[in-house]
Amino acid sequence: MMPPISITALAASHRSGEVAPEDTLREAYEAIDARGDDGVWIALTPLDEALAQLKVHLARAEAGEDLPLLGVPFAVKDNIDVSGLPTTAGCPAYSYEPEGDAFCVARLKQAGAIPIGKTNMDQFATGLSGTRTPHTIPHSVFSEEHISGGSSSGSAVAVAAGLVAFSLGTDTAGSGRVPAAMNNIVGVKPSRGLISGSGAVPACQSIDCISVFARDMSDADLVRRIAQGYDAGDPFSRRMQETGLEVERPVIGVPSEESRLFHGDDEAAALYEKAVDALTGLGWKVVEIDYTPLGDIAQLLYGGPFVAERYAAVGAFCDDHEDDVHPVVGKIIRDAKSWSAADLFDGLETLSAARREMAERWEKMDAILLPTAPIAPTIVDLLDDPVALTAKLGTYTNFVNLLDCAAVSVPAGFRPSGMPFGVTLVGPAFSDSDLAYLGDRLHRALLPETGADRMTLPPETALAPKKPEGWMEIAVVGAHLRGQPLNHQLTDLKGRFLRQTKTGPNYRFYALANTKPPKPGLARDTAFEGEGIEVEIWAVPPDGFANFTFAIPAPLGIGKVALSDGTDVSGFICEPSGLDGAREITEYGGWRNYLKASDA
Amino acid sequence: MMPPISITALAASHRSGEVAPEDTLREAYEAIDARGDDGVWIALTPLDEALAQLKVHLARAEAGEDLPLLGVPFAVKDNIDVSGLPTTAGCPAYSYEPEGDAFCVARLKQAGAIPIGKTNMDQFATGLSGTRTPHTIPHSVFSEEHISGGSSSGSAVAVAAGLVAFSLGTDTAGSGRVPAAMNNIVGVKPSRGLISGSGAVPACQSIDCISVFARDMSDADLVRRIAQGYDAGDPFSRRMQETGLEVERPVIGVPSEESRLFHGDDEAAALYEKAVDALTGLGWKVVEIDYTPLGDIAQLLYGGPFVAERYAAVGAFCDDHEDDVHPVVGKIIRDAKSWSAADLFDGLETLSAARREMAERWEKMDAILLPTAPIAPTIVDLLDDPVALTAKLGTYTNFVNLLDCAAVSVPAGFRPSGMPFGVTLVGPAFSDSDLAYLGDRLHRALLPETGADRMTLPPETALAPKKPEGWMEIAVVGAHLRGQPLNHQLTDLKGRFLRQTKTGPNYRFYALANTKPPKPGLARDTAFEGEGIEVEIWAVPPDGFANFTFAIPAPLGIGKVALSDGTDVSGFICEPSGLDGAREITEYGGWRNYLKASDA
Repeated sequence: MMPPISITALAASHRSGEVAPEDTLREAYEAIDARGDDGVWIALTPLDEALAQLKVHLARAEAGEDLPLLGVPFAVKDNIDVSGLPTTAGCPAYSYEPEGDAFCVARLKQAGAIPIGKTNMDQFATGLSGTRTPHTIPHSVFSEEHISGGSSSGSAVAVAAGLVAFSLGTDTAGSGRVPAAMNNIVGVKPSRGLISGSGAVPACQSIDCISVFARDMSDADLVRRIAQGYDAGDPFSRRMQETGLEVERPVIGVPSEESRLFHGDDEAAALYEKAVDALTGLGWKVVEIDYTPLGDIAQLLYGGPFVAERYAAVGAFCDDHEDDVHPVVGKIIRDAKSWSAADLFDGLETLSAARREMAERWEKMDAILLPTAPIAPTIVDLLDDPVALTAKLGTYTNFVNLLDCAAVSVPAGFRPSGMPFGVTLVGPAFSDSDLAYLGDRLHRALLPETGADRMTLPPETALAPKKPEGWMEIAVVGAHLRGQPLNHQLTDLKGRFLRQTKTGPNYRFYALANTKPPKPGLARDTAFEGEGIEVEIWAVPPDGFANFTFAIPAPLGIGKVALSDGTDVSGFICEPSGLDGAREITEYGGWRNYLKASDA
Repeated sequence: MMPPISITALAASHRSGEVAPEDTLREAYEAIDARGDDGVWIALTPLDEALAQLKVHLARAEAGEDLPLLGVPFAVKDNIDVSGLPTTAGCPAYSYEPEGDAFCVARLKQAGAIPIGKTNMDQFATGLSGTRTPHTIPHSVFSEEHISGGSSSGSAVAVAAGLVAFSLGTDTAGSGRVPAAMNNIVGVKPSRGLISGSGAVPACQSIDCISVFARDMSDADLVRRIAQGYDAGDPFSRRMQETGLEVERPVIGVPSEESRLFHGDDEAAALYEKAVDALTGLGWKVVEIDYTPLGDIAQLLYGGPFVAERYAAVGAFCDDHEDDVHPVVGKIIRDAKSWSAADLFDGLETLSAARREMAERWEKMDAILLPTAPIAPTIVDLLDDPVALTAKLGTYTNFVNLLDCAAVSVPAGFRPSGMPFGVTLVGPAFSDSDLAYLGDRLHRALLPETGADRMTLPPETALAPKKPEGWMEIAVVGAHLRGQPLNHQLTDLKGRFLRQTKTGPNYRFYALANTKPPKPGLARDTAFEGEGIEVEIWAVPPDGFANFTFAIPAPLGIGKVALSDGTDVSGFICEPSGLDGAREITEYGGWRNYLKASDA
């Protein structure tokens, strides 16, 4: 079907008629049919029904509605409700007919996407391998012997095999990341609460995240943005308040060699080392961290009282249906009953302290680079040793939701054995947008390929660092420009350079008298038509904006500046008295030129 | 000892030498001695030791250090460590010698206060009556038959009886509020995490709060401010980020009559009704709320899995020392073991949803007025029916910490039987400062009296609404003044009027041309010496400041304005071009005068 084009391009081609969207759908169903029982699907939307949905979307597009996912087929993990298909969570006895679409599925359909089926999974999302299913066990698109990764097994394979443009998974312990690594695609694990869990079968509800698989980060980030949204019906839903990372030269934490764990997979260790080296090549700064405390938190998820949240979710069902539940899954969930509320309070206290330590770590770095999974076992090995090997698979993923982080997994090369390897960037809560940008740069730097056919990506990312939602734009003209003495006031606030431009023509420019460091003043003169004055547009968070404005001494202040494109932005203005004794320097066109000329 | 004077005045009189601080200490010990075994104290600091501490404080004061609590004696509940005295939490077998002072005690000592003893309590802070103690049961200062309230029983009585100037309690379910109500004093229950719990025996550690008893709110608020502070050693410690309330005409939620519960105490019901009436008298706005959902959350604390946090804290001790533990307390704690982690996850989900509903409620009101306790039972009745009557005592207090609220209890009159009645203002987390101000206004409006001797307070509060920590000050001169068309831009942001003043002399004032609504512009003219221009100083939160500034159209902006007192504040400035066609109106001295003159 769609490999060489992005979701945005696919939707655009549907809109323009360049590609008939019916053909896209039909080809997807044909490709699925051609693969036979590959263990990917639990149920398919009847083609007629998919075509009927498409018809409605096309009519809406015709009527002028903007549908960014027009006619884009996607797959949904079978623990997320899709209207008209049963939800089974990988357990046929648990099956129910949902009342409607899950909150996030409805948002994607609203954007024109079409869910074409429900995918296989480790039952009740309890596992990281894809082997804990009563259906056919799916395998990696690169090896019939190796695991697909799980629990979102079918969703990952569906994307890697090119059957759909993107898919939804869920991720509590790593289920949205490990399968991405096993199939050479990207996995986006959003911050907790960004994508509503309404209409999903809970695993550990307070930390469950709905996740996105796609061929590259720009596709996955687009889907994440469309799927997310505050939902009053989900007690754990949260509103996005973007956390900005340094996106040009981020500081990346990397586990010290002593604290790395590869459980004997030397090929993975070497690929990871290569990924670390690539960071320096990108101009990013590497700082060493001790992974041990994060690994300890990872243990809490299955080795501590937090597993009991799974009992709270489906324990009663498992108690009543012992024969209908996968034996490994059933044992894990039933055993979870034995943890007491007092144990959990102890665990919550440990977690509270760990979250605080994590917050302190984030003061010193932007993200952490980790192997997504340190090993890539065979299905046979996994079935032989299901619990211990699953714990090893989750070595680097289990802690992430407990410590309220966002994460993106990207392809990072192939083992000589032929199995792919992935790395994950972990960032603080709500850093999703910047993490996607960094992840995409890393993906293209490490191995600009994706999926089963190892399709080549262009070396440059299509993503750009955006103004984080809620941040304010500000135009600076003098000592705050990059390289100038007060620029640190912007970078100290984590301000972000957005672009260089010019003011509109009605501005004169002055070198102010008696300012230290020397500062210029912009003065609007509606009778004057000049060339415009060079300005830089920066984004600063609201708190930072307040502090920045607060610190500006007279005669300057923050008002409105008209730009050459006719828009107004917040920017430096000058009191009339500030121009007393000032020298007009409009002819230089900007502060840097003036300084250069003064030096010469 | 100290009844007629405030803590600040007492410390000042010690500093000035007007009162010999040794006398204050000796009188406190004499008063304690004179009362005999009143059930208030578990251990006293030896007088010599207290005098030795005083000597050190006096030397520091002599050396110029500012000690706002110089020589002020205070009492500490026996579940909070005081160096040199055992900590027993009301259970002699549990006794240990602390390694040092609790974090908050150290802060109070650092400010010059002297802990003169450890006070009786419901064992392990499990109770609201004061009767669950192996020591003498204390009673209300107004009745030998009636309970003192608990669990911070001794600390409340010590203040009410005038033995100390203030005391520390702890408050998980209401232990810092119920005893205040039973003894006609104020109880401040700070936001969770504001006062570190390091060095306190946990009850339900994640929601425990150290609380303050004092004679009036201005004393209690002072102590709270000194005791609070971020503590990296307490996993639940939080930094203050002040939440501002409307302090002039707050909106107060009051339970609908159908949802009020007084368990047959009609006298309390009538006193509560009187307090509600007083709100209107203060010019505050009353809105009716349904108390039922808050009452349901209250049930979770003892009737749900949250009680298991008590087992996590002292359960192992209670298991091993069945004979040494108060039978009622022991049963509650040991029974808590039976709650499972899965139950707690269910409870946490309920709580998460309830916290979110609470956040929505706070959008519509500033605080809730509740009876502190709906009943005032006798000791005999309590001993007869210890669990059910305790639950009734906590009717209006149990939910507060679970829903992350701050609360202050103030005296609100006397039942004909002679027992006092108290009401509590509950506000959102971090509204402590404004809640104290509102509580003080209410206290003085309802019954300007305090303590056993019903000492009269002056009708006017000594507290003033302050600029919340971290908020920014801004000077406005025109359409944003109170009563002017854009003032709502400040009030919409919860901005707070602080004061009216004038600019410095070097300002001219202009009515700008072509502005809608009409706006003035301030223009600094260093060569001009005028009378100054009328300005109002408002405080706005940082987010609000950014949005406010962002919304200002050209030619205005936010720069620095020099005030008549020589200080600079952020305030409106005007671009030079904005003065084109403007009319100078300096002679009017301000925008309001100019508008008045123009109308005439």
